[in-house]
Parts: sequence; structure tokens; C-alpha cells
Amino acid sequence: MAESPITPRDKDFATWYQDVVLQGDMAEPAEIVKGCMVIKPNGYAVWEALQRELDTRFKATGHQNIYLPLLIPQSFLQKEAEHVEGFAPELAVVTVAGGKELEEPYVIRPTSETIVGHFFARWIQSYRDLPLLMNQWANVIRWELRTRMFLRTTEFLWQEGHTAHANHDEALVEVLRILDLYAEVAEDVMAMPVVKGAKSQSEKFAGALRSYSIEAMMQNGLALQAGTSHDLGQNFGKAFNVQFQTNEGRLDYVWQTSWGVSTRLIGGLIMTHSDDKGLVLPPKVAPRKAVIVPIFRKDEERSVVMEKASALAASLGAHLDTREGLSPGAKFFHWERQGVPVVFEIGPRDVAAGKMVIKRRDTGSKEIIPQEEAPSRLASTLEAMQKDLYARAQQRLQQNTVLANSIGEVEEILRDVSAEKGGGKFVMAHLKDDPANDARIKEFKASVRNIPMTDSFDGPGKCILTGEPVDRRVVIAKAY
Amino acid sequence: MAESPITPRDKDFATWYQDVVLQGDMAEPAEIVKGCMVIKPNGYAVWEALQRELDTRFKATGHQNIYLPLLIPQSFLQKEAEHVEGFAPELAVVTVAGGKELEEPYVIRPTSETIVGHFFARWIQSYRDLPLLMNQWANVIRWELRTRMFLRTTEFLWQEGHTAHANHDEALVEVLRILDLYAEVAEDVMAMPVVKGAKSQSEKFAGALRSYSIEAMMQNGLALQAGTSHDLGQNFGKAFNVQFQTNEGRLDYVWQTSWGVSTRLIGGLIMTHSDDKGLVLPPKVAPRKAVIVPIFRKDEERSVVMEKASALAASLGAHLDTREGLSPGAKFFHWERQGVPVVFEIGPRDVAAGKMVIKRRDTGSKEIIPQEEAPSRLASTLEAMQKDLYARAQQRLQQNTVLANSIGEVEEILRDVSAEKGGGKFVMAHLKDDPANDARIKEFKASVRNIPMTDSFDGPGKCILTGEPVDRRVVIAKAY
Repeated sequence: MAESPITPRDKDFATWYQDVVLQGDMAEPAEIVKGCMVIKPNGYAVWEALQRELDTRFKATGHQNIYLPLLIPQSFLQKEAEHVEGFAPELAVVTVAGGKELEEPYVIRPTSETIVGHFFARWIQSYRDLPLLMNQWANVIRWELRTRMFLRTTEFLWQEGHTAHANHDEALVEVLRILDLYAEVAEDVMAMPVVKGAKSQSEKFAGALRSYSIEAMMQNGLALQAGTSHDLGQNFGKAFNVQFQTNEGRLDYVWQTSWGVSTRLIGGLIMTHSDDKGLVLPPKVAPRKAVIVPIFRKDEERSVVMEKASALAASLGAHLDTREGLSPGAKFFHWERQGVPVVFEIGPRDVAAGKMVIKRRDTGSKEIIPQEEAPSRLASTLEAMQKDLYARAQQRLQQNTVLANSIGEVEEILRDVSAEKGGGKFVMAHLKDDPANDARIKEFKASVRNIPMTDSFDGPGKCILTGEPVDRRVVIAKAY
Repeated sequence: MAESPITPRDKDFATWYQDVVLQGDMAEPAEIVKGCMVIKPNGYAVWEALQRELDTRFKATGHQNIYLPLLIPQSFLQKEAEHVEGFAPELAVVTVAGGKELEEPYVIRPTSETIVGHFFARWIQSYRDLPLLMNQWANVIRWELRTRMFLRTTEFLWQEGHTAHANHDEALVEVLRILDLYAEVAEDVMAMPVVKGAKSQSEKFAGALRSYSIEAMMQNGLALQAGTSHDLGQNFGKAFNVQFQTNEGRLDYVWQTSWGVSTRLIGGLIMTHSDDKGLVLPPKVAPRKAVIVPIFRKDEERSVVMEKASALAASLGAHLDTREGLSPGAKFFHWERQGVPVVFEIGPRDVAAGKMVIKRRDTGSKEIIPQEEAPSRLASTLEAMQKDLYARAQQRLQQNTVLANSIGEVEEILRDVSAEKGGGKFVMAHLKDDPANDARIKEFKASVRNIPMTDSFDGPGKCILTGEPVDRRVVIAKAY
């Protein structure tokens, strides 16, 4: 693809995002399939890195991967009343297959709680079968009206965990364990700080007792729900008759959880770290940690530079850019847009002097270093960059988190905020968890993001809408 | 799930297969979704092992992973005449989405050549963009009438490679490189010998110039097509107008390839190695290489055995079966059915004597060994088992490969062969590659599997149907 300029963030954040995604070889829109995208090599490699980090943690906490059918009998969705209400408008329906009209249509899974319910009823008879801890890596389809690459697409890739437990306490432990696991991957791997908390009743998953989320702040101050973990109670257990014999010999319905993160994480990653030059990837998720660009003009310089550069590439585990017919400048430009954390350059004079140049993507800092220090400098630069990216994002989150003590104040703070122009804040306010209150917030196109788990926002107070006493402030923000 | 007896192979091979799949926790039918299955933990873990082995090799040969939309506009299929003819009867069609009838229906991908063609036309302008070497891990749907778990299911998981090249020679090199890669994974990882060869014209992929396959022999002598690699020529390039500027400045259509293996491989793995006691997994794909079953009767024996067993499990990287309320016998039975290559047992007297028992899954051989030899004995047993499984399968293939010099002889050899009763052979005969000849073979429910690449079956001869001279014998067999 031809390389085009990247719109600056302060001109139009939304267009900047699109430019970064396209120029970073992350994805492109698949106009021919409504609201879908093609995930391109650099984007898919980041997804693979996230999959590895998540999957390792799922397995370490006793979860097993399975794979369930893509198609779900339409009637299944109807067995849980809130669930069908939540998902019915977004379904893609298969009505014809093998050349014939189907007697009962299938929907393409928007999520798999219903089909999981069906199989859990087959697999669970006794408390000895519990807990049952499953996960699947899969694609899902939700017919969305407004889509943005990675952030909201008709089809997306995700993992969905599904577990069954003998009692509510154990289910809740699981829900929060996974929320912690998600926060750990977001913060330690993606360098993206998050606020953990409970969703309000009106924002919970369709069919859950209670949902929990991690919410991240993008560079424009908008919130991004980056992962959710649901306490399903016995709702699906009852809808699908998943009963088990307790260790006292009674029959009871199982307590279930479900939880997921998706390719949406990649959108969050991009909007947390990237800059006006293009993609910035934290070292831990960067498919290529380092690239070496060899520099030479005359043919006689070529062999001496390439020989040294090859040896360095091998010892550093770096990619050597051997492309012909491209200037070094074009190569730097390319790797900058691909978000490669460290780029080395080496020319004939460097070879002679035993030196090379190390350049760090996020700060743009360049330094001439002795070649023998390259391995240690690469390691320390990657480590520093990972830390610094987190620190900068954490500072942005803190600086843009503000308290508000009236509904007028909340509205005022968020009035001119938009995805394009930015200016978003996490507004911390006391608000009673009541759908009527959520509705009032929605009037100015914001929402209650979550009710934080930690009590670091000055404790109890009175609801800014009803005056009722509430435990703690909630996060109100405009969001993706 | 309750454990049921496994039907012996010689009684009914087809039922044996089903029993092994179910009792080995590999998969189960999802009756509610026609022809689909649930891939269960042990089965999915084997798939993950195969994915790792394949993906590493794809990347080492320069391929990049991407992800394309699940849904394909119905009109795309029609752009390549043979392709639509081949796939139209098997399509699942989405006609309603987001609550509305769609103007143009989407089909769920049965394979992605058409949508790849569309994007290749966007991505390729010049010879500098070639070769373009892509792969995707995905689910596909083909509405099949008769299904069997893993071997043929409506939905299956696979990888599909898609590449574009500047000329036919390079495309053909790619097709054969991948065929070799598939054979290597089948033989070296799955311990499943295969015959590499070209498919006949009547058996090629719909839209290809020529298809190549690896064919394995199951224990009942039936053939299983375990992987295919297609030389697509310029067919899709022309259908989707994928043109590029050559290095001489002309415009030409790209030469494409596509290739895939699927969860069907797992069916082949099972039918190659498993026995009347259940699943047998080659060590290289076994999710658990070794399990330790601790044995004790009295409470005072428990702690001394468990302490030693835990230490051994840690040093061996083995799984310690700590389940309560299950006899050691029930545990052995369980791991045998799960196909775990090596099971150790250790009781109080073993602890005292510094001994333990090592048992090998395929041969059933048991031996008492000193605990300090356990690591080296585990390693050597796994290595020997991997080799021996291959050797046994290779011997079976050789013993059941026979020559035939007339059509009557071919028919006679294959007459009483069935998936249930077995008796299958690879019948090597001289046959001209002509759809009329393939049709004659199909009359007795067999097919030309492929035309082997190697000339190890006595060279040229005369076609057993037309008398025309042909280069070499082809493989004729009954197949899955």
C-alpha cells in the first residue's frame, strides 16, 4: 500500500486513529462485508501476542480450551429473557443451508452462553463435576450500526470463558480472579492502566446478575471498556436446566460465570500509546522488538555493512531490513509506522568505528553506542520503554480523572468532549446504581463506566441526582 | 461423562472410532447443530499442538498470518465458474441480519479463495509486492450430508494458506514446499506416514489447475486425505482482476496457490494409532506426556506417597493425579483412554525402595525402575514410542499396498472393504488421468486418491481401462 500522511491527533483524533491502523499494517476495512475488517499481518501478530499472554494465564488458573459450534438454534436465545432482548437486534441469521430453507434458522453466535448452557446440562451431574472451567477462542458476529476498526466491528475475534460452580461465592471468586487477570494483562503487558469495577445494573451483560469491567482511558480522554467478567448467577442454569447433585445430596442449579476480551484490545493499545508519527507498540506485544537498517551508498560499502549488520541481527534477534531499492529514510519511516520499539542503524563509518545508532520509537531519542553494548542496551531500552509507556498512560489517566459534585458539573465537564476533538475525562461522582440515573447521564451522551472496586476516590457521599447515600463515586465518561 | 466400554476394532471399526473419540474426551456430537461437534479439552489440546507445529513452519518459510471476514458476498462465489459449481451445494447462507432481510445474502466461508482474490487485487500492484505469502487460522462451514466427528463435520477448524506469485514456476515451488511441510508434520509429529501426490483432474479443488494431497492409511485400510495444496494458476487472478506490473513493465495476472489442513488431521491421528483400549497419542502431540498415579490404602501411607509423588511430578514435568474418591484402577483406566503416553505408579513400598513403575501406553509394557532413572527413562520411552508408532503405521501401509494390473483385479481387492469391517488397501494401478476413468472407479465406491510423486511403484505401464501408456501407477482406495 502507498504510504499517506497521518492526520495529527489534535486535528482529528478519529481520523488519526484510522490513519495509524492503516499505515501500521494493522487492519483495513472490508467494505464488501458490512462493518467487517481484514486483520493484517502486524495486527494479527499483536493479537497472537495477546493470545499467548492470556492463554498461559487461563491455563495456569485451571481453565481448559474447547470449541463450540458457530451456529446456535434460534430458539436457544429465547430461553433466557434478558439475553434474547439484549442480542436479538444484532443477530445474523442463517435461513438457507445445503440448498434448502431450514426448518429452524440458526443464528451466528453473538456470544455462547446459550449453547454452553445446553452442553453444561449434558456434562454436569454432580458437585464432583464442579467447578467446570472452560474457555474458547472464537469469532463472533454482532450486527452493529456504527463500526470502527478493532473497536467495534460486525465480526470480531475474542476469547469467551464459561465456568460453572457449586455456589455463588465460588462463582464470584472466579469472576474477580478473571477481572484481575485481565487488568494484569492490560497493565503489565499492554502498558495500559485500567479501572476495575462493577458495571451499573443498566449496563450489565444481558442475562447476568452483575457484570464487572476494566475501563481504560484513551488519549482523547474517552473510556474504552477493555474486558468484562460476568456473574451470571443461576440465570442460564435455570434456562438450560443445568442441575447438579450437591454434596448433601440435594439438586441445585449451577452458578455460572462468563468473561471475555476481544480484538478490541488492539484498538485500546493503539489509542493509548501511538503518536502523530504512527503506531507505538509496547515491547511486550511488539511482533518485532528491533530492526536493523543498514546504510551504504557505494557498492563497495555494501558488503562490509551487510556482513556486520547480519552478524548483529543474529546476535540481537533483530530483523535485518534487506529490501532493495528503498532509501534508509523510507525504511526508518516504514518501521516507525509499524511501531517497532527499537531501530538500529549502521553505516560504513559505524562499522569501522565499532559503533551503531540505537533509536527508541516512543521518545524518538537517538544515540551512538559501541556495538558490543548493543545486546544490553537493547534489553534496557525495551524495559525502559515498557515502563515509561505505562507511566505516561497512568499519568494521563490521573490528570484527566476529576471529581464532580453535581449533575450540572458532570455535564459541564463532558459537554464538548468528542471522539474527534478529545478532551474527555473520567468524572468521579456519587451516583446511586439505578437505571433512571443512568438514563439521565445518557442524555448528554456519556455513561456510567463502572463503580470502581478500590475506594481511592474519597469514600461515601450523596447521589448527585437523588441525594440518597451511596458508598463511593462511580466513573462517568464518554466512551467508545 | 460416564465411561462406557469401547467396541473392538474388528467388530465394528466405525463404532470403535466413535467410542474412542467420546471416551478420550476428544469431541462429542452437537446434535442440535446439524453435523457439528464440540471439540473437548483433550481434542482441542491436540489441535493446539498441531497448530504450533504447523504455524512455526509457516512462519519459518516466510508466511504471515492474517484474518479475513467469515461472511462472503454470495456474488463473489460466482466469479469463478468451477469454484461456485463445487461449493454451491454446501453453502450456509445468511439472509437476515440486524433484524432486516439483506439485499445481497452472505455465505459463510466454505474456503476463502474468493475474498482473498478481492483483497489481493487491492494489495498487489507490482512484482515488488510478490510473492505475497499469507495464512489464516479459521473456521469454515460446508453443509455435509454424512458427517463423522473430526473426519467430516459441517463446521471445522483449519488453516488456509493463500499466496500470489509472479510466475507459474514460483507458484508450483510453493505448492510443493507446502506439501512437503504437511508430510513432515504428518510423519515426524503425528507419526502418520503419508503418500504425497497429485490429485486426478476429476478430484482436484474446484477452481484449481492441479491439486496435490497427502493420503494416509487408517487401520481399516481406508484412505484419508489429510492435507491438500493447490496450484490455482491464474484462475482466481483473472476472476478477481489481480493484475501486477512485471519487472519488464507488462501487466499480468498473478499466479496463486492455496493449501490447508484441518481438524480432520485429528481423526487421522486417532484412526492411525489408537487401540481397543482407547486413544493412543504420539508423544509429540500428547497434551500430557506423563501422569503419576499415587497408590495408598491407609491414611498413614498417604502423606509419604504424596510427598514423593509430588516431588517426582515436579522434576518430571508430569501431571499428578490427586483426585479423591477414585481407585488407582479407575485412574489408570482414565489415562489409558485419554491416550497419555506414559503413566507412572508409585506406592508405599516403592517409596521405601526408591522405585516406581513406568507403563507405556502403546505396548502396555510395565517395568519397575529406580526413581533416579525416571527422567532419562521417560525421555527414552517417549522417543521410542514416537518412533515405534511411526514404524508400525509405516509397516501397515506397506503391507496393505498392493499392485493390480486389471480393473477386475482392482474391483476384486476392494469389493468387501468398508469403514466398519475394514480390509482396505491402497491398490496401485496404471490409470490414465481422465474423468471417465475416475468415474469407472467410483462405480465400486472407491476413488483415485492421488498420483504419487515418487516413482517407487515400478514405473510406466498401460492404463488398465484404456490401454494408453501412463507414467506411473496411481493409488486407488476406498476413502473417508
